[in-house]
Amino acid sequence: MFSRRELLKSIGALTAGVGVAAVSRAALAGIPEVVSQHSPDTMAPLLPASGRPYNPVVTLNGWTLPWRMNNGVKEFHLVAEPVVREIAPGMKAHLWGYNGQSPGPTIEVVEGDRVRIFVTNKLPEHTSIHWHGQRLPNGMDGVAGLNQPAIPVGKTYVYEFIARRPGTFMYHPHADEMVQMAMGMMGFWVTHPKDAHPHIEEVDRDFVFLLNAYDIEPGAYTPKIMTMLDFNLWTFNSRAFPGIDPLVVRKNDKVRIRVGNLTMTNHPIHLHGHEFTVTGTDGGPTPPGSRWPEVTTDIAVGQMRQIEFIADEVGDWAFHCHKSHHTMNAMGHDVPTMIGVDHRGITKKIQTLVPDYMVMGERGMADMAEMTMPLPDNTLPMMTGDGPFGSVEMGGMFSVLKVREDQAPNDYSDPGWFKHPEGTVAREWTGDIAKPKRSKEHGGQLMPLEQPQAKELEVKVRKPQTHNGHK
Amino acid sequence: MFSRRELLKSIGALTAGVGVAAVSRAALAGIPEVVSQHSPDTMAPLLPASGRPYNPVVTLNGWTLPWRMNNGVKEFHLVAEPVVREIAPGMKAHLWGYNGQSPGPTIEVVEGDRVRIFVTNKLPEHTSIHWHGQRLPNGMDGVAGLNQPAIPVGKTYVYEFIARRPGTFMYHPHADEMVQMAMGMMGFWVTHPKDAHPHIEEVDRDFVFLLNAYDIEPGAYTPKIMTMLDFNLWTFNSRAFPGIDPLVVRKNDKVRIRVGNLTMTNHPIHLHGHEFTVTGTDGGPTPPGSRWPEVTTDIAVGQMRQIEFIADEVGDWAFHCHKSHHTMNAMGHDVPTMIGVDHRGITKKIQTLVPDYMVMGERGMADMAEMTMPLPDNTLPMMTGDGPFGSVEMGGMFSVLKVREDQAPNDYSDPGWFKHPEGTVAREWTGDIAKPKRSKEHGGQLMPLEQPQAKELEVKVRKPQTHNGHK
Amino acid sequence: MFSRRELLKSIGALTAGVGVAAVSRAALAGIPEVVSQHSPDTMAPLLPASGRPYNPVVTLNGWTLPWRMNNGVKEFHLVAEPVVREIAPGMKAHLWGYNGQSPGPTIEVVEGDRVRIFVTNKLPEHTSIHWHGQRLPNGMDGVAGLNQPAIPVGKTYVYEFIARRPGTFMYHPHADEMVQMAMGMMGFWVTHPKDAHPHIEEVDRDFVFLLNAYDIEPGAYTPKIMTMLDFNLWTFNSRAFPGIDPLVVRKNDKVRIRVGNLTMTNHPIHLHGHEFTVTGTDGGPTPPGSRWPEVTTDIAVGQMRQIEFIADEVGDWAFHCHKSHHTMNAMGHDVPTMIGVDHRGITKKIQTLVPDYMVMGERGMADMAEMTMPLPDNTLPMMTGDGPFGSVEMGGMFSVLKVREDQAPNDYSDPGWFKHPEGTVAREWTGDIAKPKRSKEHGGQLMPLEQPQAKELEVKVRKPQTHNGHK
Repeated sequence: MFSRRELLKSIGALTAGVGVAAVSRAALAGIPEVVSQHSPDTMAPLLPASGRPYNPVVTLNGWTLPWRMNNGVKEFHLVAEPVVREIAPGMKAHLWGYNGQSPGPTIEVVEGDRVRIFVTNKLPEHTSIHWHGQRLPNGMDGVAGLNQPAIPVGKTYVYEFIARRPGTFMYHPHADEMVQMAMGMMGFWVTHPKDAHPHIEEVDRDFVFLLNAYDIEPGAYTPKIMTMLDFNLWTFNSRAFPGIDPLVVRKNDKVRIRVGNLTMTNHPIHLHGHEFTVTGTDGGPTPPGSRWPEVTTDIAVGQMRQIEFIADEVGDWAFHCHKSHHTMNAMGHDVPTMIGVDHRGITKKIQTLVPDYMVMGERGMADMAEMTMPLPDNTLPMMTGDGPFGSVEMGGMFSVLKVREDQAPNDYSDPGWFKHPEGTVAREWTGDIAKPKRSKEHGGQLMPLEQPQAKELEVKVRKPQTHNGHK
Repeated sequence: MFSRRELLKSIGALTAGVGVAAVSRAALAGIPEVVSQHSPDTMAPLLPASGRPYNPVVTLNGWTLPWRMNNGVKEFHLVAEPVVREIAPGMKAHLWGYNGQSPGPTIEVVEGDRVRIFVTNKLPEHTSIHWHGQRLPNGMDGVAGLNQPAIPVGKTYVYEFIARRPGTFMYHPHADEMVQMAMGMMGFWVTHPKDAHPHIEEVDRDFVFLLNAYDIEPGAYTPKIMTMLDFNLWTFNSRAFPGIDPLVVRKNDKVRIRVGNLTMTNHPIHLHGHEFTVTGTDGGPTPPGSRWPEVTTDIAVGQMRQIEFIADEVGDWAFHCHKSHHTMNAMGHDVPTMIGVDHRGITKKIQTLVPDYMVMGERGMADMAEMTMPLPDNTLPMMTGDGPFGSVEMGGMFSVLKVREDQAPNDYSDPGWFKHPEGTVAREWTGDIAKPKRSKEHGGQLMPLEQPQAKELEVKVRKPQTHNGHK
Repeated sequence: MFSRRELLKSIGALTAGVGVAAVSRAALAGIPEVVSQHSPDTMAPLLPASGRPYNPVVTLNGWTLPWRMNNGVKEFHLVAEPVVREIAPGMKAHLWGYNGQSPGPTIEVVEGDRVRIFVTNKLPEHTSIHWHGQRLPNGMDGVAGLNQPAIPVGKTYVYEFIARRPGTFMYHPHADEMVQMAMGMMGFWVTHPKDAHPHIEEVDRDFVFLLNAYDIEPGAYTPKIMTMLDFNLWTFNSRAFPGIDPLVVRKNDKVRIRVGNLTMTNHPIHLHGHEFTVTGTDGGPTPPGSRWPEVTTDIAVGQMRQIEFIADEVGDWAFHCHKSHHTMNAMGHDVPTMIGVDHRGITKKIQTLVPDYMVMGERGMADMAEMTMPLPDNTLPMMTGDGPFGSVEMGGMFSVLKVREDQAPNDYSDPGWFKHPEGTVAREWTGDIAKPKRSKEHGGQLMPLEQPQAKELEVKVRKPQTHNGHK
């Protein structure tokens, strides 16, 4: 049995600086005690203290649920409940989730494990859990009404099945499903292969997270649950940039990232600097002969895509959804275009009356990232995130893959910003391009090769014509 | 020639309980008489009474169009016309379709068949038919203006070509295309292979249907034809759950499902309990080496995806679009969130004035499925569908794959709800988990293995914090 | 070095009838002079006058940027600036682009080339360029704030890297990205393979273009930059049908089309009359064993899809996005449905007061394509485009693949409309189907085989029931 002491040992293995999971006073002997998480930080991989060994995953801004062994059965305890999730520093959302967070904890088991999951419903309405993608008895599939009664408020239900198929799965309610998923109820499940599998490779780093979308009005805390399309918060595991941790790897690591989508639209996830292949779906591993190289994989709703690549390019590489609005935080979509309209005179006059008044977007919106316009409480700036060269002007589904020569194996701690070799950063042309360093080509780290003759640039551009509404 | 008597013989082969197709009095000798369908039920497969043999498909809540042979040519007659389609019991829509229904009938031919299709336009505006995916003479491709004149109101046009490529196709207008497709004009076409094809396997059950979306205001009958995104009715072959028939199969059947999408967005079609592969597109069969396992296939607009799997898990398995709003019926998307707001006092006061008044969603929306709030005439409940364990709380693009040990071959009749082996349904934990039946593991049908010690569950959860708008 | 004379020689190779690129007075010696384009026409492929040879691409309604060689480095000069783009005859948009057009010019290099790109910022706000999909030093990746400082207004920055990977790439800003891409800032990049590549075939025609979406109110000139979903102009390389040039090929040409998507939604690109395979992504060429036949490929945001096929069917084949609203020009999406409402009496009365008044859509919208309702200035008709058989009733993302027996190699000039062999066009049935020409079957070019007996068609259809709102 997985004792309280063992539980704490596992939790004690978490890296310094991250929060410690709280363990409730629930009776140890009856059903597994409830382990809750109060921090939105990325927890260290949970090394299996019992059962078959495996290489654990890292849940981005999340954690893995401890279990106990009970006569050869892995027992987990999920509590469906209202939670407060910090979306990013400066904004908290009132969501529904599991065990203190949304998304719920990742569940990790090994192919062939018999698992028993106790689900306690502390929501204000009934719920159920569907184990998306699993092979299991029909009565354990979790569609309320069809496969089981819904779990009433205050009750605990038991699911039990063998994790027959190695792979990557999700869990979420299948009762009042639209509402409960809009409120953040979802989690990841990884079934590690028992033996070597011809289509499942060993990797050095294995990250997992879910895609989520919320519609929370600026200043509010609770998602609007009827929204179908016009969401305003796009998140990785219910976190928005700059609240999303970087994915830290060592150069030449074999890296796997598993991403599940439980939103209402496709998310094309794009990695800079590397090509990858999709090596698995929630249906199983893809045969190697079927794989394509990609830099953007489109993840449909109700799909998991597992991508793999060798991290052979050092640097800080953007990793994000390629829909440009999904790398922004909450904003209105009905704001009229100001590009080409010059308000400078009017603004000055208004400011004599309203000192804070400012006009947005007449010369684009890059100013937004720096300006100090007052925001409602509990609202993230639309474009934000400080990088080593100024504002990254992003939000939402955006993080950074940090590839470092000297990152220690199993070290996930943030190494800070990349230190670029001299002459490898795009720079202003001032007519004085440095004498070339005729170093040999090594990877992409090129030195400028020769000195162009410095002359004044005289660009003939047309008169800008951007006034709106008439020629 | 396919005589009236033969026609009726084919129709007579339909299973009992489904409607009988009406045959008009059109002259048999000139062009094929018009066969119309008045029922939205799934018709039995139409066994070919003439021409080369093949294994016919089953159109979900649809039917296959009979033909006649005329000097070696298969002749069909489609009539484009306004139709009334029952979306589900309780709601009818005024659509445009073919031969009495929307979608139009499925056309089935054999590779190499010469086909002649007479198209009569009984719409109030001109039309055309594009034979999506077919190899054919450019003048038969059906793009009005580009490849042919549009078919004027009241006229009959003739298309003729050889079905050169085995596969799955669609047909729809290519004249005032946006409007006519928004009104429901579309149909399926299957060209069966003439000989064994290395990438086309024999299957036991072969289902086909189209995905459709409508925007019909509650209480109205006619789709709003200008809607681009904000549809409110999501259907399989113009039927919404619970109006969609189950897909009934025998255990270990090889099952093929062909799904075409002629809406305005991707639909990720998800099957519970089984993995499948995409074995074909509207471009042809996929080479086996290129196939991936999936549990959700994302079907883009203007695409057909043909999925295949062995139905080796008995039970009632949900089969649906994974976008949660697409498994709901008509509802407003601008309703404010009530979660966390307690209206009980206010509601009581309002009800003294308005006895029917009720508040929606303050504790989620699961109550919706049971409540008796009066709906406008001709409107489906948002969440509905009774299953063996209560309301399924679904609508829209949702059906059930019913896998039974004892279903007879070629029997598509509904076997009722699945009878679960004892101990295989998720159940309330009451501290009295039954003494384990130490049966051998057989598939997913597991018995509980041991008796956890019964102790009172004492879950320590946080105080719910779901009030809206302030901390 | 690529002299001014050589530059003009390359430009002089453009086909007659297209505009001539303007060359600024920028100093030749310092950095490359600015080459700008004033025409939205498709320019002839730019044959490489220096450097390694390759088969150049044709940018649909676009052009390739000339370069100069400088001590073994290919030097390009991009100017980010406000531009005026003709979307189609009758409508101009005020966009942001590069070197006089939006999208910017295509950049073509050869695998292994060392490239240096000077980027001058003539926008009213800072910018940067991200070289989507490239392997390059991290500091050249172009994410402002993360990999480099943003390029201030009026400054020129220098990017330099080796084009290490053959393939198809895109470039776009990664600074105020949402706004700058909504304004049209994007371009294509092709790195031709240096040597034979097992997964990259030689082709006869190689077309490239980007997908774009704008929200420009009827009568306005500048896109609304905050729009997330409800765009109203869907374009190929910032051109809408009928402003998009046809793709002209010779029968049996091996054709490649590379399409990149930098909008906010998936675009399912559909080709009539042929099947194709996806032979490459922005991640690289697809292994042949992984390829599927398709007639519609769904291109996600931030993806490039390279399709290939043998153009073995002569004719004029529609080639378009299959989302029906994306083949329409600007229109309102909130217009109430008029289908089934008869306004004829009312309209006549209103016209005595407002002579121009007309009702839209009570019998569908096909009338729209022909009618003369006055439009605001600078607005395209919703449905338009004259074909050989009348209005094609399209707009937006729609073009035509013209396959001709007698098109000369390398001739991209429009051959006019296809001349159909007798008896190969869908035609009205008048009871007098011509005596069959018993020619042998040759491809799809079939003659009618026999004479059906001519009898009056007597179709029994139901009374149309399309009135709105009540049974």
